[in-house]
Amino acid sequence: MEEIENKGGQGRTELEKLGEFGLIERLTQDLPIHHPQNTLKAVGDDAAVLRIPEGHVQLVSKDLLIEGVHFDMTYCPLKHLGYKAIAVNLSDIAAMNAKPLQVLVGIAVSNRYSLEALEELYAGMRLCCERYGVDLVGGDTTSSASGLCISVTVLGSARPERVAYRSGAKENDLLCVSGDLGGAYAGLLLLEREKREFLANPAMQPDFKDFSYVLERQLKPEPRLDIVDLLEKIGVVPTSMIDVSDGLASEILHLSKESGCGCMLHESKIPVDLETCKALEMFKILPEVAALSGGEDYELLFTVKQADYEKIKDCHQVKVIGYMTEAAQGNFLVPENGTLVPLTAQGWQAFDKR
Amino acid sequence: MEEIENKGGQGRTELEKLGEFGLIERLTQDLPIHHPQNTLKAVGDDAAVLRIPEGHVQLVSKDLLIEGVHFDMTYCPLKHLGYKAIAVNLSDIAAMNAKPLQVLVGIAVSNRYSLEALEELYAGMRLCCERYGVDLVGGDTTSSASGLCISVTVLGSARPERVAYRSGAKENDLLCVSGDLGGAYAGLLLLEREKREFLANPAMQPDFKDFSYVLERQLKPEPRLDIVDLLEKIGVVPTSMIDVSDGLASEILHLSKESGCGCMLHESKIPVDLETCKALEMFKILPEVAALSGGEDYELLFTVKQADYEKIKDCHQVKVIGYMTEAAQGNFLVPENGTLVPLTAQGWQAFDKR
Repeated sequence: MEEIENKGGQGRTELEKLGEFGLIERLTQDLPIHHPQNTLKAVGDDAAVLRIPEGHVQLVSKDLLIEGVHFDMTYCPLKHLGYKAIAVNLSDIAAMNAKPLQVLVGIAVSNRYSLEALEELYAGMRLCCERYGVDLVGGDTTSSASGLCISVTVLGSARPERVAYRSGAKENDLLCVSGDLGGAYAGLLLLEREKREFLANPAMQPDFKDFSYVLERQLKPEPRLDIVDLLEKIGVVPTSMIDVSDGLASEILHLSKESGCGCMLHESKIPVDLETCKALEMFKILPEVAALSGGEDYELLFTVKQADYEKIKDCHQVKVIGYMTEAAQGNFLVPENGTLVPLTAQGWQAFDKR
Repeated sequence: MEEIENKGGQGRTELEKLGEFGLIERLTQDLPIHHPQNTLKAVGDDAAVLRIPEGHVQLVSKDLLIEGVHFDMTYCPLKHLGYKAIAVNLSDIAAMNAKPLQVLVGIAVSNRYSLEALEELYAGMRLCCERYGVDLVGGDTTSSASGLCISVTVLGSARPERVAYRSGAKENDLLCVSGDLGGAYAGLLLLEREKREFLANPAMQPDFKDFSYVLERQLKPEPRLDIVDLLEKIGVVPTSMIDVSDGLASEILHLSKESGCGCMLHESKIPVDLETCKALEMFKILPEVAALSGGEDYELLFTVKQADYEKIKDCHQVKVIGYMTEAAQGNFLVPENGTLVPLTAQGWQAFDKR
């Protein structure tokens, strides 16, 4: 994670010195344009002006990230936070089997943030835009009574015949997932433990050795746009697709419900990385529980026709973890030995009393 | 304002009873689609899927509205707030001389809001969408530590040759404004006065008679999409355009700066409604001061070529208030009698210490 390390210690410029327009100008200066034929006017007017690639339809999604709900400033460096805010939005476009082209960013901050802090946040955003060739075309910055609120809108495009909805899965389709699961949750558990220890003893130094992978899964997730490219290359259009933000179980139930199917998920096929297993062991959490209910992995979950098995079976980034059934059969987890367990969503609940 | 009155008193359903998905489903059920050929998939997937009208470019803008900064729940009914949140975003598309087609809405709320409160907010949003034939294609609702945060993204389109940027004004172009100015600020002053009196004596009843127009200007502004239609009908493409959200002076300076011009603004030509003048008189504020610095009127400010004067002169909704000059001449207010006054922006400053 060297490239994203915080620089820190460059002094402090109060936001009210700059004013609203000065701040936006400062944060959005010298933004590169990766798609000059599609991004006709970026920041600086009442709206951005865009052109959709010929023959494509447009995809739009937006997400709000709220301090104290979606992130904790105690252990989330601003640059990572900026990166993640963009990455999770790009993931929504990937989840339609499409490619992102532009993002717009709105930020509300209290006066306790300095210009330098916001520059760190923007640096992370720019880094993620740069990596995925996405243009930042709109920026709006305003004050808030307390805390930080980040709103990102992402725009993308795809040929209409390649767009994958949640609703297209059919009986007997194979259920596939990219990468591995549970890592982001393991990273969160580690960070929360360090926070508790830090609060008890502020002199302590975090001991994160051997856990760089799960920490990166939590702090700096990557949208699986490489999978979108891969599927195009091998000539597969998923029959349905979603990204894993709330845990595998919750996402499978979305696909089943929207597609009018049931599902059999083979527990032994769920991919979990070895480092994730080791980290989870410290917290006495089973890997499959973290994968099913942990969330924030931002992998792609999708279904393909049985006929596409030959095309997908040698892609090491994709694993077949089950298959779709009739809706009447319900949704089940199939353990290696033993009886079927009904799948239930135990994902993150935004409105639980906290 | 009858159609937008609050119903009130329908009980209280706690948000945590519904959960995140239940809440979004409830708020976005039965949304009408006004543009089925352009809105291919609205809410319910990872992203909305849209098609831009043939031969058009796309316009995108977004705005964050924060409780305690952009609105005060003491005097802003939720239904009005919902209406205004959409209206001010549609105004950004109007300000490009384009038409809005879709909006996406993100809301962060604390548990002190009930389902019924959010339904009121959404009812106002739906009403504004309905009036302007705009599709609500994305909804994201999450919790916040405190207060209400509303993020709206608006998408629109126009033929590229009709798009009006801030940067196209030329020397000698006529400076025009729609409607009248200062009303929204007068409405705000009235509401703030009532709030102070209410805090001093909670038994008091507000006395708003004779001021329905200025109150409506503040609580329920309308985007001037009728002006976009009018300009098309009379065959005029503005050379530059912006909407008046921060006060006339600030907006003129934006056009001048972006276009590399100066400006002469004739004080006596600034349109102010009679009711606005009466309300401002109570606060000992000059009408031209409210128009220049008050903000939130959401009228359209634009420049046209001298040659278009004949086309525009009989449009009673548009008034010529000045003309553009060389940049070197600067920006001035021309009083009826007396010497030129340099124009300065005294608009709303988001990051002033409060």
